[in-house]
Amino acid sequence: MDALLDAVNFRIKMGGEDVAVAIAQDHGSGEILMAAFMNRAALEKTIETGLMHYYSTSRQRLWKKGEESGHVQRVREVFIDCDGDALVFKVDQKGAACHTGHYTCFYRRLKGDGWQVVGRKVFNPEDVYRG
Amino acid sequence: MDALLDAVNFRIKMGGEDVAVAIAQDHGSGEILMAAFMNRAALEKTIETGLMHYYSTSRQRLWKKGEESGHVQRVREVFIDCDGDALVFKVDQKGAACHTGHYTCFYRRLKGDGWQVVGRKVFNPEDVYRG
Repeated sequence: MDALLDAVNFRIKMGGEDVAVAIAQDHGSGEILMAAFMNRAALEKTIETGLMHYYSTSRQRLWKKGEESGHVQRVREVFIDCDGDALVFKVDQKGAACHTGHYTCFYRRLKGDGWQVVGRKVFNPEDVYRG
Repeated sequence: MDALLDAVNFRIKMGGEDVAVAIAQDHGSGEILMAAFMNRAALEKTIETGLMHYYSTSRQRLWKKGEESGHVQRVREVFIDCDGDALVFKVDQKGAACHTGHYTCFYRRLKGDGWQVVGRKVFNPEDVYRG
């Protein structure tokens, strides 16, 4: 895990935290599932557990993806970019990545001057997130 | 273009600029080519020209991808995520995305406790970037 931690440049400041961009990509289809941020603790936890952990910039805390919904992302491969401030994780997604119930958070495609919903909906948020 | 500009939440602060994450994905293969940032001006220029423009956080200026190398990225499709702070652009990549000469900037894969070069090299940087 040292090679990974040493290579990452947490140069982005979000809410007082040093973070890098973390992109989750579907291991099978290549679909981009979500883009979020990791601080060093989130990256360590991800490597240690094999499950994606992010740094939630809105809640300002470590966030295990799927902690409430059960829709975890299991890491299959890790890639780093040339300047070390972005990581791509190829993952197996359980359920869906998006809190809206869509498989990917990128479920809206620009069409003319509007948005077209193109991603498939996997669950109803009301059934998954309670109270 | 209003639907796009209105939907993007430039909530990330980089060097005094408000930016969003911009991910370029190969339209054909689905490979993730690079992850960088766009401010509002970069997004406007991208939509206006159909060619990817980023905000360079190191040089603190608008940056047309390929301005020096000729390795432009032509936009084919645009996707936005659920909270509007990240965009995926499916593009046709001319040459290679990475200044190192690799087709994708994510050309290193974690293997054990080291990095394995997996991306194909398309050009020699010394032939492309002069002086």
